[in-house]
Amino acid sequence: MPDTEANDIAYGDQVLFMGRDRKPFLRTLFPGEQLQTHDGVLRFDDLVGIPFGSIVQTHLKRDVLLLRPSTDDLILFLRRETQIIFPKDLGYILLKLGIRPGSRVIEAGTGSGGLTIVLAMMVGPTGHVYSYDRRSKPLALARHHLERLHLLDRVTLYERDVTEGFDERDAHALFLDLPDPWEYLNQAHDALRGGGIIGCTVPTINQLIRLNKALHSYRWFYIQIEELLLRQYKTLANRVRPDDRMVGHTGFLLFARRVFVSEGGDSQLFGEESEWGSDAADGEAG
Amino acid sequence: MPDTEANDIAYGDQVLFMGRDRKPFLRTLFPGEQLQTHDGVLRFDDLVGIPFGSIVQTHLKRDVLLLRPSTDDLILFLRRETQIIFPKDLGYILLKLGIRPGSRVIEAGTGSGGLTIVLAMMVGPTGHVYSYDRRSKPLALARHHLERLHLLDRVTLYERDVTEGFDERDAHALFLDLPDPWEYLNQAHDALRGGGIIGCTVPTINQLIRLNKALHSYRWFYIQIEELLLRQYKTLANRVRPDDRMVGHTGFLLFARRVFVSEGGDSQLFGEESEWGSDAADGEAG
Amino acid sequence: MPDTEANDIAYGDQVLFMGRDRKPFLRTLFPGEQLQTHDGVLRFDDLVGIPFGSIVQTHLKRDVLLLRPSTDDLILFLRRETQIIFPKDLGYILLKLGIRPGSRVIEAGTGSGGLTIVLAMMVGPTGHVYSYDRRSKPLALARHHLERLHLLDRVTLYERDVTEGFDERDAHALFLDLPDPWEYLNQAHDALRGGGIIGCTVPTINQLIRLNKALHSYRWFYIQIEELLLRQYKTLANRVRPDDRMVGHTGFLLFARRVFVSEGGDSQLFGEESEWGSDAADGEAG
Amino acid sequence: MPDTEANDIAYGDQVLFMGRDRKPFLRTLFPGEQLQTHDGVLRFDDLVGIPFGSIVQTHLKRDVLLLRPSTDDLILFLRRETQIIFPKDLGYILLKLGIRPGSRVIEAGTGSGGLTIVLAMMVGPTGHVYSYDRRSKPLALARHHLERLHLLDRVTLYERDVTEGFDERDAHALFLDLPDPWEYLNQAHDALRGGGIIGCTVPTINQLIRLNKALHSYRWFYIQIEELLLRQYKTLANRVRPDDRMVGHTGFLLFARRVFVSEGGDSQLFGEESEWGSDAADGEAG
Repeated sequence: MPDTEANDIAYGDQVLFMGRDRKPFLRTLFPGEQLQTHDGVLRFDDLVGIPFGSIVQTHLKRDVLLLRPSTDDLILFLRRETQIIFPKDLGYILLKLGIRPGSRVIEAGTGSGGLTIVLAMMVGPTGHVYSYDRRSKPLALARHHLERLHLLDRVTLYERDVTEGFDERDAHALFLDLPDPWEYLNQAHDALRGGGIIGCTVPTINQLIRLNKALHSYRWFYIQIEELLLRQYKTLANRVRPDDRMVGHTGFLLFARRVFVSEGGDSQLFGEESEWGSDAADGEAG
Repeated sequence: MPDTEANDIAYGDQVLFMGRDRKPFLRTLFPGEQLQTHDGVLRFDDLVGIPFGSIVQTHLKRDVLLLRPSTDDLILFLRRETQIIFPKDLGYILLKLGIRPGSRVIEAGTGSGGLTIVLAMMVGPTGHVYSYDRRSKPLALARHHLERLHLLDRVTLYERDVTEGFDERDAHALFLDLPDPWEYLNQAHDALRGGGIIGCTVPTINQLIRLNKALHSYRWFYIQIEELLLRQYKTLANRVRPDDRMVGHTGFLLFARRVFVSEGGDSQLFGEESEWGSDAADGEAG
Repeated sequence: MPDTEANDIAYGDQVLFMGRDRKPFLRTLFPGEQLQTHDGVLRFDDLVGIPFGSIVQTHLKRDVLLLRPSTDDLILFLRRETQIIFPKDLGYILLKLGIRPGSRVIEAGTGSGGLTIVLAMMVGPTGHVYSYDRRSKPLALARHHLERLHLLDRVTLYERDVTEGFDERDAHALFLDLPDPWEYLNQAHDALRGGGIIGCTVPTINQLIRLNKALHSYRWFYIQIEELLLRQYKTLANRVRPDDRMVGHTGFLLFARRVFVSEGGDSQLFGEESEWGSDAADGEAG
Repeated sequence: MPDTEANDIAYGDQVLFMGRDRKPFLRTLFPGEQLQTHDGVLRFDDLVGIPFGSIVQTHLKRDVLLLRPSTDDLILFLRRETQIIFPKDLGYILLKLGIRPGSRVIEAGTGSGGLTIVLAMMVGPTGHVYSYDRRSKPLALARHHLERLHLLDRVTLYERDVTEGFDERDAHALFLDLPDPWEYLNQAHDALRGGGIIGCTVPTINQLIRLNKALHSYRWFYIQIEELLLRQYKTLANRVRPDDRMVGHTGFLLFARRVFVSEGGDSQLFGEESEWGSDAADGEAG
């Protein structure tokens, strides 16, 4: 799914449809298929060759706008078998893990494949994603999603419990979305390159405490616990205000760096109880 | 700055130093230079060839950990002339704009170049970033940052007011970080491809209202106003808790899609006062 | 509703019922009436004389706990005709308005009477609440609530538009919960004592801007705009976590003090554009 | 401190001073004393008899506004020896504990007396506050504050560890602000009337988990964990926006009701693992 698509709609494209009621529908354009809404029918064959951003009409003469989905549209409209990681967290995870074109990144579990998709998109054709899940159903769903988005060649899916460890070594980053991530820290340590970044998400504060404690060893450093709240606003021009209801919680995010400890190696770094500063002390980036 | 770096430290690398006081320092490794902290001196020439994630000692025998900065480290430690967009927002902006390897994206203004860096990183060698600012100082600083991060070849910097419009056409996405973004919506419309995504950030609710109103025209659709709050936690194993103080506000984010309106074209889509649903109605992504 | 109730349940008491499904029911205990739930029936005549905090059984032998409602229970379980002010805001409003036993306070509009109830409770038998609404329906409902809670003698209800002004003078505090509070600032000024506190709540940022601007005159000072977010947690002992969904917005709160300007009187205080400090500069309270 | 003060300033009053720089100063008006600011001097003897809300001038002819402090002013400007409970939480605690004129309420520890003051204010002359602390210093400070606010006759201060239990029985409500509240739940149970409400505040999630677990016994019911975030806004008429920095965390709040269990008494209520609903099921309040 490189961003080299033509400006005009083609078979196989993901298209976001939006009519007067402003409810979005997302479909893959297959020949002979169609979208049915209460505003009428749109035949996909009629849409091929039309520029994205155009307004077309259903057989009931109702206007519908044709959009290319943004990345968060793709994730929010995923068919899911499990709880997904929300776009608010996905974008931040990308930065915290240092993902960029060329990155080699591991995740477990695959779940419905939301993070898998975003990682695969961002590592580009020169990077790779290794995704582990022990359940066949989510893996099948993730494979389906990746295929439609033309991203499957950048992803290796493993149907496997990660207790046995990961097959990769020197991975740039690794993300655990598992109920008991503290059980897999050694395996994660083995799979990461020196200084490599681990990220985890857990929903409860009981898990948060247990995971944080497990990361406080001589094998990890620069532990960060963070959480993002997304507030969305109503947009009526004369009545702008935050939504009455919002997502109050998805998961806590934890990040740490693999320390490359040589044999016999304890270090002065781990002796004391102290916090990592959340503010930059001094820098010269770029 | 492709993620194909060797695991071992080399001249020109960005290195994040962290000692027992856990304060991070970020430096570019130039031959003959050194890091001076109150824990002692580290000569950069001694670090070349050592794996990232290693612990080394200063001349005072104090341990220091050598890390590859993550993307958010790079942004937070930027030398700044202006307010930056924070990592919490940068990651989300990437998803909302649909940025991926190969994207062609415009921004104005350049500011200290934080968004420029992240965009340049993510569009990869096959994409491009066009960044406009009318002030020479921020541009010089952004150029400096991009150069050090080996990203300058992916970015075109313009010292120019965007009142005159953007040079590009059919851009995939465009971001305005200007005090009066409503003045440049026509220019943005011209520069975007059909369905292309505009993003903006403004700090005050006065600006928010004015920009939202300006976007309510027949040229834009699917307007979203959003805001992210990042909560960071103290990590002491037996005293985990949210930080006492947090960043309470950076900016509001607005997004909309360019509608490709043909001549004469009003549409049923713009007649009514209604909201865009924040929840997915129906989807088949992937 | 003085807090001098006996510990044992009596006719006329508000009782909060909670069974195994942990859903709360609130009822006034009238002779001959009963509570019907899917766990069975509780006859109110059987409950009189039983201590609050006791567990009783329905005719189906299901346990039900009898509780005295806290103030927030009373408000949340109010039958409403209009949007209520939430307990998170009510408590804070009490402090910001300086309400205490003996206070004389005005509100408009009455709405469903949630704030009216809390004010009446807190001003005690020596204080008084004056509540204005131009709609008869909410007033009737508020009267009904106040009567059941034995608070009606502390409240004067006016069915009247406040355009004409308030009947009271030298009120200690005044609260406006109206769609266009900026229209009534002069009336509020006349009704407040010198230094008296005005509070307002508005849902949209358009109203917020307009009201804030209107308060920036020589008649008001010490303007504060605030907003409270309540996060509730799931309490399962091994799975503590914030609720998935939360109330994302109710209303913005604004407060200001009536300045007692003598004739002819402008003042140096109003000349400059500046902010009020949110932090205490120096104090000696108590 | 009943709200029956005259409108004019008298000796012994708390006065909030605010000049052109809009920094608030709080002072008790003692004869012969004065306020010194960089805007000049105000002699207190000159202020007696002037109405609150008036603007007076320093000896340098600078305007200063004289205000009666609201309750949150009083708390924020307290001289403190320990962390205080913030106004955002104090107001909510009042409602959750069902405090009103006439209430008999216990607290431990006293700390700097912020909650003590607010409770004493609100229970009025017919209620009473019993406040325990084992440290003499905070008690002395609290006594000082209460005296100046003319509230000491409503408060009994105990210099005592509450391990030995509280002296009171049938208290309406009880609040624990202690580092290890789980140690005192039995003592609290003994001191509360049936259905009486316990409230606690703890800063860390480790304490939160431990306290929540301890409350999950057959002696308590209707457990609620909550947290309030206060967002304050800059008020410049043309640049309204949330403050850049905010208080990110003070403490978590927990509430529960004392169940009046008769001898031998387990109950069906405690058998199952389930949550308390945060939404009202059904109500008839008032």
